[in-house]
Amino acid sequence: MILENEQENWAMAVLGIVAEYNPFHNGHLYLLEKSRQQGDFSATIAVMSGNFLQRGEPALCDKWARAEMALNAGVDLLIELPFCFATRSAYYFARGAVQLLQRTGVVTHLAFGSESGQLSLLQKIAGILAHEPESYKAILKKGLSRGLSFPLARSLALQEFMGADKKELQEILPGPNNILGLEYLRVIEEEGIPLVPLTIPRQGSSFHSSDLSPFSSARAIRQALYQNLSWEKITSSVPPATEEILQREISLGRAAIGPDNLDQAIMVNLRLISTNYLKGIYEVSEGLEFRIKEAANSCGTLEELRQCIKSKRYSLTRINRTLLYTLFALSKNQIELYDQHGPQYLHILGFSAKGQKILQKIKIKSKLKIFSRGSEMKRACDENQGTALADMISLDSRATDVYSLLFPSPATRRGGRDFTTSPVILPPMVPGT
Amino acid sequence: MILENEQENWAMAVLGIVAEYNPFHNGHLYLLEKSRQQGDFSATIAVMSGNFLQRGEPALCDKWARAEMALNAGVDLLIELPFCFATRSAYYFARGAVQLLQRTGVVTHLAFGSESGQLSLLQKIAGILAHEPESYKAILKKGLSRGLSFPLARSLALQEFMGADKKELQEILPGPNNILGLEYLRVIEEEGIPLVPLTIPRQGSSFHSSDLSPFSSARAIRQALYQNLSWEKITSSVPPATEEILQREISLGRAAIGPDNLDQAIMVNLRLISTNYLKGIYEVSEGLEFRIKEAANSCGTLEELRQCIKSKRYSLTRINRTLLYTLFALSKNQIELYDQHGPQYLHILGFSAKGQKILQKIKIKSKLKIFSRGSEMKRACDENQGTALADMISLDSRATDVYSLLFPSPATRRGGRDFTTSPVILPPMVPGT
Repeated sequence: MILENEQENWAMAVLGIVAEYNPFHNGHLYLLEKSRQQGDFSATIAVMSGNFLQRGEPALCDKWARAEMALNAGVDLLIELPFCFATRSAYYFARGAVQLLQRTGVVTHLAFGSESGQLSLLQKIAGILAHEPESYKAILKKGLSRGLSFPLARSLALQEFMGADKKELQEILPGPNNILGLEYLRVIEEEGIPLVPLTIPRQGSSFHSSDLSPFSSARAIRQALYQNLSWEKITSSVPPATEEILQREISLGRAAIGPDNLDQAIMVNLRLISTNYLKGIYEVSEGLEFRIKEAANSCGTLEELRQCIKSKRYSLTRINRTLLYTLFALSKNQIELYDQHGPQYLHILGFSAKGQKILQKIKIKSKLKIFSRGSEMKRACDENQGTALADMISLDSRATDVYSLLFPSPATRRGGRDFTTSPVILPPMVPGT
Repeated sequence: MILENEQENWAMAVLGIVAEYNPFHNGHLYLLEKSRQQGDFSATIAVMSGNFLQRGEPALCDKWARAEMALNAGVDLLIELPFCFATRSAYYFARGAVQLLQRTGVVTHLAFGSESGQLSLLQKIAGILAHEPESYKAILKKGLSRGLSFPLARSLALQEFMGADKKELQEILPGPNNILGLEYLRVIEEEGIPLVPLTIPRQGSSFHSSDLSPFSSARAIRQALYQNLSWEKITSSVPPATEEILQREISLGRAAIGPDNLDQAIMVNLRLISTNYLKGIYEVSEGLEFRIKEAANSCGTLEELRQCIKSKRYSLTRINRTLLYTLFALSKNQIELYDQHGPQYLHILGFSAKGQKILQKIKIKSKLKIFSRGSEMKRACDENQGTALADMISLDSRATDVYSLLFPSPATRRGGRDFTTSPVILPPMVPGT
């Protein structure tokens, strides 16, 4: 039977991707299409951040809308990366995502974009990061004791340790996509995860760039939206479906959410809590609690606050994330527990017809709970009170409830959406059309 | 010597007033002037709410600006009613304020406005409230068991118990100024406080009215400000100094603060906390925690939330106060401790030349700490950690820090103002000018 054959094919090769899709743009489409050309893949599964991102900011539009964009571009199944991994530094973000892909039980390959495109060199570096040879560690330690920030000390230590590749390293190490890619490869190496890595060289403007071109960065597209630039510029940078979905979300009053939309809640919370409370929050150490409290006292806006806390040691994204942990009262102990367990469930945000079939396969192969209805997620949370599973769900759900309050239209701000929203389903494709 | 004679006069009669001055208007001026005609008073002291009010809302402009309005109208000394009393139901508000006046050691009279103006009848009712005769209690209990709200059951029980005065009672009991007046008189009676009460009949439009006249209510004046009505209408309702101060505060970007300005912080906080946490908050009982959480989940704005929680049992002001307690994490135990101790300090918001002299008298007569500099308040808070005194100061200070974030101009939102702001001082009056 055709169906059985197809199922066997799926067992052979399934492509995994990690993304934020904030929003889905031509660069994401390019990665998707190029990756699929690298093998005979039965389906593509993307692990995607929810409503809050690795930069510690709320997403432009909600996770279901972003999943829909990806489905339209050909991703078959969208799974949410829980908040407790999605809003973390590169290593823990990568670790949560790679573990989630592996725990589906069906993903065989991991594709990622990189500025470099040189997989073997990236793997070589990732191997050093994973195994930390003694002499590398000694150089790193020396740099840190000289007061260098960790990324800089690490970069210099790698250059000194690897010697011959020094010039290439100087090009590779600053690339934000390279950095994430290195962390995926490091996790694969560290944990012996049987995912075959693929890397596709990124096209177009750099990650931080804000000019618009066919390969504009997500950041440039968001800026264009916030600044109400003409839609033409956005049109040229995203697939038509992304544009339609963005326009729909804006007209429904559910977009565009900016990085400062949580301003009051974050500032008020910081003024109410004590330094002692702050000290228990994840990533608050070395007296950062005093630095944050002082800034909260002297600053009038979130942007002023970020700039005030920022230093060589604390980057803006790290500060943003820390402020988010503070608002959500995420303690060091809680995060330790989440990291110990890794992802505990697959929250399905959307699927295509092919995605639906692979979900059946996952139900057989995966040990994780699969939530393809909100009510299932709620039940699992209620029935497992006190476990890491319930805690992670509760955190995701609270994040969604807080995010919903940022919608421009008050009528759309209802809470409990994680427990009531169904995955986005693209109409099953009719063969031959 | 003239100075000594003056000091002796002060010892004879000092007028006390309890107020919110949100903002100070012609009705307040009328009360002040009429009260002072009732005796030979050496000075007038007002106990005034800080930045948050009995309705559970932030004030129109900050406490120093409102103190300045009152000083200009002839009040000599402004003392802050701590947050933990200022944002409470009528009885506890009145109790905190009357205790504070008494604890100055110098106030001899308490003046208050009332719709009724009939002191002896108000005292008669207050006596019943203070002593709760058995037969009155029985009627009250019966009414409550019939499901009546407490104010309605109390009103009907008083009417039945007092019989002969029934018709007058029907007129007296609904008046918001009468209600507060009754509570002042009740506290005086209950605690045997040696303050002589005076009541002045209110002039002009009712408390809840929103039309503007020479005796417009504070509410009507605030509405006119929020709605950007012409200044002429405000001019006719407030003394010139109030108008100038309001215009200055607006131009400095520190006014006008509306009742919904804390919207996001309150809503986000409600979505983050659990019903179990809510249950520990002061005034949350009888399952109100579930009612609040449900409303927080279904509502998109603070106004919608209030209307959604509102019922026969829970008035809008009670809900507003409860939301404030929730934001400031005020537990039942904490409030019990505060009520046990009563006011622990005199935070001086402003004084006239006469007020400065009476402050010297208070320093001799009062057992409470007197803060006429922010730094003194901070030191007392730091040095008495863990006591009711330090807790109350810390709460006041956090309330001011949160309030400052509501200022329209970001540059004015600095925290720590309670610990850095000096009292408003009206230039000493030169005799004979």
